[in-house]
Amino acid sequence: MRIPIDPAGELPMFRQVEEFLRKSILSGALAPETRLPATRRLAQDLGVNRITVQNAYAELEADGLIFTRTGSGTYVLAQAPLAPIPKRMPGAPWPLWQTEAGERCKLSSTTSPEEMLKNARHPRPINLGGGCGDSRLFPAEDYRRVIQAILRRDGVAALEYGDQAGYFPLRSNIAQILANQGIPARPENLLITAGSQQAIALVTQLLLRPGDSLVTESPTYAIALDLFRALGLKIVGAPMDGSGLQVEKLEPLLQQHHPRLIYTMPNFQNPTGACMSVQRRRQLIALADRYNIPILEDDYVGDLRYEGRAQPALKSIDPGGRVVYVNTFSKMLMPGLRVGFVVADGPFFDSLARYKRVNDLTTSNLHQRALEVYVTVGRYQSHLRRTSLIYGKRRDAFLRAVNRYVPAAVNIDPPQGGLFAWLRLPDELSAEKLLPVACKEGVAFMPGNVFFPCREEGDHFLRLNFVSQPPEDIDEGIKRLGKAIKRLELLARKAG
Amino acid sequence: MRIPIDPAGELPMFRQVEEFLRKSILSGALAPETRLPATRRLAQDLGVNRITVQNAYAELEADGLIFTRTGSGTYVLAQAPLAPIPKRMPGAPWPLWQTEAGERCKLSSTTSPEEMLKNARHPRPINLGGGCGDSRLFPAEDYRRVIQAILRRDGVAALEYGDQAGYFPLRSNIAQILANQGIPARPENLLITAGSQQAIALVTQLLLRPGDSLVTESPTYAIALDLFRALGLKIVGAPMDGSGLQVEKLEPLLQQHHPRLIYTMPNFQNPTGACMSVQRRRQLIALADRYNIPILEDDYVGDLRYEGRAQPALKSIDPGGRVVYVNTFSKMLMPGLRVGFVVADGPFFDSLARYKRVNDLTTSNLHQRALEVYVTVGRYQSHLRRTSLIYGKRRDAFLRAVNRYVPAAVNIDPPQGGLFAWLRLPDELSAEKLLPVACKEGVAFMPGNVFFPCREEGDHFLRLNFVSQPPEDIDEGIKRLGKAIKRLELLARKAG
Repeated sequence: MRIPIDPAGELPMFRQVEEFLRKSILSGALAPETRLPATRRLAQDLGVNRITVQNAYAELEADGLIFTRTGSGTYVLAQAPLAPIPKRMPGAPWPLWQTEAGERCKLSSTTSPEEMLKNARHPRPINLGGGCGDSRLFPAEDYRRVIQAILRRDGVAALEYGDQAGYFPLRSNIAQILANQGIPARPENLLITAGSQQAIALVTQLLLRPGDSLVTESPTYAIALDLFRALGLKIVGAPMDGSGLQVEKLEPLLQQHHPRLIYTMPNFQNPTGACMSVQRRRQLIALADRYNIPILEDDYVGDLRYEGRAQPALKSIDPGGRVVYVNTFSKMLMPGLRVGFVVADGPFFDSLARYKRVNDLTTSNLHQRALEVYVTVGRYQSHLRRTSLIYGKRRDAFLRAVNRYVPAAVNIDPPQGGLFAWLRLPDELSAEKLLPVACKEGVAFMPGNVFFPCREEGDHFLRLNFVSQPPEDIDEGIKRLGKAIKRLELLARKAG
Repeated sequence: MRIPIDPAGELPMFRQVEEFLRKSILSGALAPETRLPATRRLAQDLGVNRITVQNAYAELEADGLIFTRTGSGTYVLAQAPLAPIPKRMPGAPWPLWQTEAGERCKLSSTTSPEEMLKNARHPRPINLGGGCGDSRLFPAEDYRRVIQAILRRDGVAALEYGDQAGYFPLRSNIAQILANQGIPARPENLLITAGSQQAIALVTQLLLRPGDSLVTESPTYAIALDLFRALGLKIVGAPMDGSGLQVEKLEPLLQQHHPRLIYTMPNFQNPTGACMSVQRRRQLIALADRYNIPILEDDYVGDLRYEGRAQPALKSIDPGGRVVYVNTFSKMLMPGLRVGFVVADGPFFDSLARYKRVNDLTTSNLHQRALEVYVTVGRYQSHLRRTSLIYGKRRDAFLRAVNRYVPAAVNIDPPQGGLFAWLRLPDELSAEKLLPVACKEGVAFMPGNVFFPCREEGDHFLRLNFVSQPPEDIDEGIKRLGKAIKRLELLARKAG
């Protein structure tokens, strides 16, 4: 092949080769499937370095004009039957599927209270709106040592996929802890998940299809509601009182909506802090059995009790295969571990384990192995005792502060455990309107409407986290909240 | 209240109190909603310790006979309107929903080749059926040091939830690496996921509903097929050849099935090892654009190339918002990290980030922070170079062994990179029948049918992993495979 080349020309030599070949291909002078000379050969012919030819070929290949067959050579490609699509200009419309997909998953909360608090620029902000325990109590240093020991002991094995249902020794330890709480679990019916959030997501996705109904407490965990909405489910909210889900009002809902799942937090419910009475627990299981509906029991802080006697988990009074139990180490240890678990039995368990596998194969093996050591040596139990003691004192400080600073018209049920307390404002006050006022005073909370299937029902409620701050900050935070409520009351009276 | 108590009796005193109250409640002597005396008061009346009364009440409450109203007192509960359900006897039928759920998620593979190999009890088994790289090359010790450094540096912060879309500095590093490969990614349109499996699962779940169709290469990644089946999708398989997906045969499929997604692995496809030609890549994007179908590009080992020139990722020639790109650190670093990522733009990205959140909140913060350090300092790049060098040599050893030991009637396309080679047996031989024979010889592979939307089409194919074993084991493994093929040929000829 002879290509006119000017070593002193303006274009680099590889560009000259490239341009010549490009024109020949586009004009049809070089027909599709023509074999081009080997780079070494062409370089010899043209008296240029082989790299020059290689670069020219590379450019042409990147532009879809030529292609390489392994072990056979370089060929001219047939011209694309479809014109290339021009690059999208900023502001141009997206493809139609993009627009649809953008609508598909919306979340209930827009600006987080934390962000709103930050934006209010108070010199000493206090956030009582969080969803976790106090990270200052997390055993990070212990955990660092355990991870070291594991990586030294197990090496690469700690970084491979590992057992699909989860690291077996960890599952054994968890099963033992649960057995002590009366929950009949064996490692064989215990599946490790990425936190309880994944557990809830997998169970729900496996049991329900878009358009199906499920029953939740109303109010309930906001991100579970977000999940159910994202899955296109119909959410049937069942009313709560101080003794948890009002099971006696459930039957008509089951008859009317034919739900395919009942999602409940019997202990220290999020957001209300309520515990379901034993009587209602038994009724719930009997009802679910009669209507052939599985129960998803979320026990996310079940062992964080500061007073009163522990009540049996639904799973522990399950006659067999009716209750799917989920729990997590996020609240008691560290949320970033992303290790939770499901206890289930019957054919559903195997189906769920397979469904977990197709969703993300396995959960981080290293964290599972580290947790196994951490939980075994009683460190978890002593961490739990220590934490309960501290959180219990904070709960007391919180209740004292509420008595002292919050107007009597604000209603509260003192929680016996967990992380949250639930306040009801007088009817003329809205929690959403209170939030900016409170942030200005330097305290944030979670307004109630994110927790309700029907948002408007939450307008007079707010959730306070009474464990994430030390007692003096809780006192100061509630003092500020009291002030904010009084200010809003004043404004409401003026407006009314 | 007067309760007859015998301090010298056989039963402990609290049991005597409990039994008396129990009988009174069950007989109706104590009517529902009767308020019981306060424990302190009853203890005084009976002349016993207050704890005795508390214990008695606690037992009755646990049995659902009485309940406590916070701040108000203890009351007799109305008798359960529903009879308790007897415990399930072994062998008794499960609830109906259980049976249905058990059917909902089935996987394509039953016994794994690895297990079958183990059961064959060969003294020196060689598994060429795996899906990963060689774990002996994983930088476990480096990674241990990095994790230590991170936990010392960040403490508790490394164990909290962290940024919802993923640790921002890690997303920045990945975006930079991708930019060098011509893939236009910014940290803002990069979402961290639990491996590429979760990325595929989230994208598919967000874009498709049960009953919808999607196009995959046929054959394709087995666990993606399992996922699609579990989601109730209709899988339309598009034919492959040595240059990847036969895009020119795609249009009629799009017209007939109206798929809502095209899932493809353009580089070193799993299981075939094929690379899609540049020409086809352009055609694919133009087609998808014309039919308003998103493309899911799975680039799981795109940078593991041992020869030839890298071809542009689909994402790099995406005119904007048409291609969703997923990748993972599982194959190149360690599968147990469970860290992968998605690059997407347009309204879809935000929707996807929210959908990730409702599915498992975030991915392990600690692993993300460790990876950020690991990838930054060029360690990832040098690990990649070292690994490619080693794997390339194993590929060569593999091809030599195939030439030497495998009958000429067995067809193979030499792969230019990745982990897998794809063999086609002569029509009279079945890979499923070959597997037990091969295991007896001491070598395992992955039989082809798990990779096909229509399983029967895979009967004559098998996938070999040529990187997970050292060259001498590859040589010996292929020698055994050759023997097994010849034995099966002999059996087939006898039977025919």
